[in-house]
Amino acid sequence: MSSSVHTEQSAVTVLGLGPMGRALASAFLDAGLRTTVWNRTPGRDGELVARGAVSAQSVEKAVAASGLTVVCVVNYDAVDTVLRREAVTDALKGRTVVNLTADTPDRARDAAEWAAEHGVRYLDGAIMTPTVTIGTPAGVFIHSGPKDLYDEHKAVLEALGGTHTHLGEEIGRAAAYDIALLDIFWTAMAGYVHAVAVARAEGITAGELAPFAKGIGDILPPIFEGLATEVDNGTHSGEGNPITSAVSSMAHIVHTSEAHGIDAGVMRATEGLARRAIGLGHGTDGFTRVAEMLGRR
Amino acid sequence: MSSSVHTEQSAVTVLGLGPMGRALASAFLDAGLRTTVWNRTPGRDGELVARGAVSAQSVEKAVAASGLTVVCVVNYDAVDTVLRREAVTDALKGRTVVNLTADTPDRARDAAEWAAEHGVRYLDGAIMTPTVTIGTPAGVFIHSGPKDLYDEHKAVLEALGGTHTHLGEEIGRAAAYDIALLDIFWTAMAGYVHAVAVARAEGITAGELAPFAKGIGDILPPIFEGLATEVDNGTHSGEGNPITSAVSSMAHIVHTSEAHGIDAGVMRATEGLARRAIGLGHGTDGFTRVAEMLGRR
Ligand SMILES: NC(=O)c1ccc[n+]([C@@H]2O[C@H](COP(=O)([O-])OP(=O)(O)OC[C@H]3O[C@@H](n4cnc5c(N)ncnc54)[C@H](OP(=O)(O)O)[C@@H]3O)[C@@H](O)[C@H]2O)c1
Ligand SMILES: NC(=O)c1ccc[n+]([C@@H]2O[C@H](COP(=O)([O-])OP(=O)(O)OC[C@H]3O[C@@H](n4cnc5c(N)ncnc54)[C@H](OP(=O)(O)O)[C@@H]3O)[C@@H](O)[C@H]2O)c1
Repeated sequence: MSSSVHTEQSAVTVLGLGPMGRALASAFLDAGLRTTVWNRTPGRDGELVARGAVSAQSVEKAVAASGLTVVCVVNYDAVDTVLRREAVTDALKGRTVVNLTADTPDRARDAAEWAAEHGVRYLDGAIMTPTVTIGTPAGVFIHSGPKDLYDEHKAVLEALGGTHTHLGEEIGRAAAYDIALLDIFWTAMAGYVHAVAVARAEGITAGELAPFAKGIGDILPPIFEGLATEVDNGTHSGEGNPITSAVSSMAHIVHTSEAHGIDAGVMRATEGLARRAIGLGHGTDGFTRVAEMLGRR
Repeated sequence: MSSSVHTEQSAVTVLGLGPMGRALASAFLDAGLRTTVWNRTPGRDGELVARGAVSAQSVEKAVAASGLTVVCVVNYDAVDTVLRREAVTDALKGRTVVNLTADTPDRARDAAEWAAEHGVRYLDGAIMTPTVTIGTPAGVFIHSGPKDLYDEHKAVLEALGGTHTHLGEEIGRAAAYDIALLDIFWTAMAGYVHAVAVARAEGITAGELAPFAKGIGDILPPIFEGLATEVDNGTHSGEGNPITSAVSSMAHIVHTSEAHGIDAGVMRATEGLARRAIGLGHGTDGFTRVAEMLGRR
């Protein structure tokens, strides 16, 4: 791969050196790209500079060093603080920004509008896997925006390793997928930390729970994949597991948790959704019926 | 396996023929056990009887037919309705009940007390996998209660396939694991159905989201397993992903969701936990810090 990107133009700038920005810059360096880095708080680039990265003294100097700038900061408020200054906008004119920061689809649309107004070529994207996957086959990147612009920078982006999917020209699409996928991720994580708290209150260590927690994790991917047809067809079969059965388990979780003085707000909200679905006459359906109910206008 | 359980005493009774009870009875039949079945609502046993099961006309007759009775109904209120009648208690004296119904640890303890008072030998357990896994290597069963009693019935229980783990003599232990594991499961499912609702509002079908949803599912098992050490050691490192970064994504999910008129109560509760952890001074920690915060007395 490095041979194909090892050209004069194969320079890339990374703005933002949090855990993810550092991982991105590190992968670019590994791929042999001329990598310029910048971060609001100085001193985060020591290791990268030692490995050949160029440390820029300002955002405008950083973006001027490369045809392609990858931005990865905490959110689009931070992106705007970094990019929406005259000196930076001037330096970016005609160049490409790939924004791998996570935020909402609306913010991605707003960023694309700003870019268009200022002659900045703009792609939006998101990273769906942790920092340790960057530069490895396990990384998952999603992109949206003009297809030709994506194709132009594909080789450099692929230097980050993993799989890259262009989801469509609509600039908000990557963020929309990102939101949905982070929704799954962080809700599941909320379940995990809560489960651990309840287990500990019952005298079970996280380590004792771990192999079984992993086992529950193992059954999720095929369920997430398999239920899609139920949802898209509107069938929501409860044959194997009706909502009435699920809600009974949810109530047990709330009771056990609160009997230990542990907040159960997340499960209370979940149980509430299930009870509303039952109240609407869907008790014998499967839990995916809730997706339908939530989306009802 | 069937050769070892194919003895005179290898009779088993299943009380409750919901999706799970039917799956259990079916696996017992497949293993060649003399299987007696009963369900509150008649007519659920047609297929099982056609395959050789004996349909009992009452609970007392059902339990009298076997040395071991497996109960699997919706919850322990239902179990009590089924078992706590004089005729049934009399028939059960000296026999064993394995209660594979899901409920709280306290209800399991209460059931064991009732059993002890009435000379009923009692084991508690839970099933951690869906009905389709019963009778296959994918099934996961957990048990608690007297170890010698468990060993006595192990061979018959293993006719259900899968892995069986005796978690300890304390009768509430299986239910405690069950609660924690269902907490992970149903919270993750709440994330999934919500994500699908948000994706659909953004014009993405569940089918389009599916491969990526599966991808998120794939990263969960190693995380659930790996974070246990963080929790047990109290380290909660936020080096790769601090709570301040997570909470930013959570807010995006809430905003995108509510901007589409979709209830975001589950994620609001999740974000609330993260913000409280930050408020308590743990913003640079990892999200597992929330488990510590929840469990604090
Ligand atoms: N970490 C992961 O596992 C992961 C996985 C997938 C996606 N992501 C996404 O990647 C992005 C970056 O995440 P991260 O893990 O590197 O950590 P993060 O905590 O989300 O972001 C830290 C970065 O944002 C910068 N920043 C924050 N506020 C700023 C402001 N007002 N102006 C300029 N810069 C500002 C920080 O600069 P300072 O150093 O000056 O504070 C630092 O460079 C986020 O959108 C995150 O959701 C992360
Ligand atoms: N399905 C799964 O994937 C799964 C996975 C793991 C664990 N489990 C657990 O297995 C247990 C059984 O689940 P299930 O899937 O078979 O469906 P369920 O809907 O939880 O339970 C249905 C069974 O409970 C009986 N029942 C309900 N109320 C009763 C009462 N008051 N008196 C007597 N019987 C009563 C029903 O009898 P009627 O037919 O007369 O209504 C039926 O036999 C539950 O505790 C569940 O959490 C299920």
